[in-house]
Amino acid sequence: MSKLLELDDVTAPVCCAPLSDSDLGEDEAAELATVFKALADPIRLRLLNMIASAEDGEACVCDLTVPFDLTAPTISHHLKVLRQAGLIDGERRGTWVYYRVIPERLTRLSGLFALPALAPA
Amino acid sequence: MSKLLELDDVTAPVCCAPLSDSDLGEDEAAELATVFKALADPIRLRLLNMIASAEDGEACVCDLTVPFDLTAPTISHHLKVLRQAGLIDGERRGTWVYYRVIPERLTRLSGLFALPALAPA
Repeated sequence: MSKLLELDDVTAPVCCAPLSDSDLGEDEAAELATVFKALADPIRLRLLNMIASAEDGEACVCDLTVPFDLTAPTISHHLKVLRQAGLIDGERRGTWVYYRVIPERLTRLSGLFALPALAPA
Repeated sequence: MSKLLELDDVTAPVCCAPLSDSDLGEDEAAELATVFKALADPIRLRLLNMIASAEDGEACVCDLTVPFDLTAPTISHHLKVLRQAGLIDGERRGTWVYYRVIPERLTRLSGLFALPALAPA
């Protein structure tokens, strides 16, 4: 889609099985660890939240800097980390870059933690 | 339940709203970042997978060391990180500690990434 998407170009779509129902391979574990490393930062989580909850499904970088007492380059760095983890994608239109989440990736993470059948206590 | 549960005792149950549908506060973002930091390691992900997929819903630490070329203290460290993040709980019975996932925590993470209504393309 966009040239900004990096890691997702390299890593093929992988299994969506929940942690409770599958045998996580070394490669998948390594790739997921990269995604969680991207999520292991409060600023990036809030940025992802702003993008995921944005009206029209996308957020202008011009709005993403507002709530934070951080420089634009710092925000850009955090957005780059999210993008490299395949969580968001960005598209430049005119002056600004507009970001949206990659639904497949969020859905996969949601499925990863799903507990389809809880064992009886 | 068990004395081994640490972080979860401190952090009160928090909101389960999906990222796409809520305004993530600073405190919740900081707490979630801690959880994702615990998940940002391939060994810990595989350990969590083994525990989550264990028959009877629990895994003996004696079995968790088998697939890894790591020392028992290293595995114990990783299990401690998962426990402190509130993802698993452990109970000592006799010689061994038995681990199980904390379903509420996994369900919360699953819900966090849920996309209840995808925006039209």
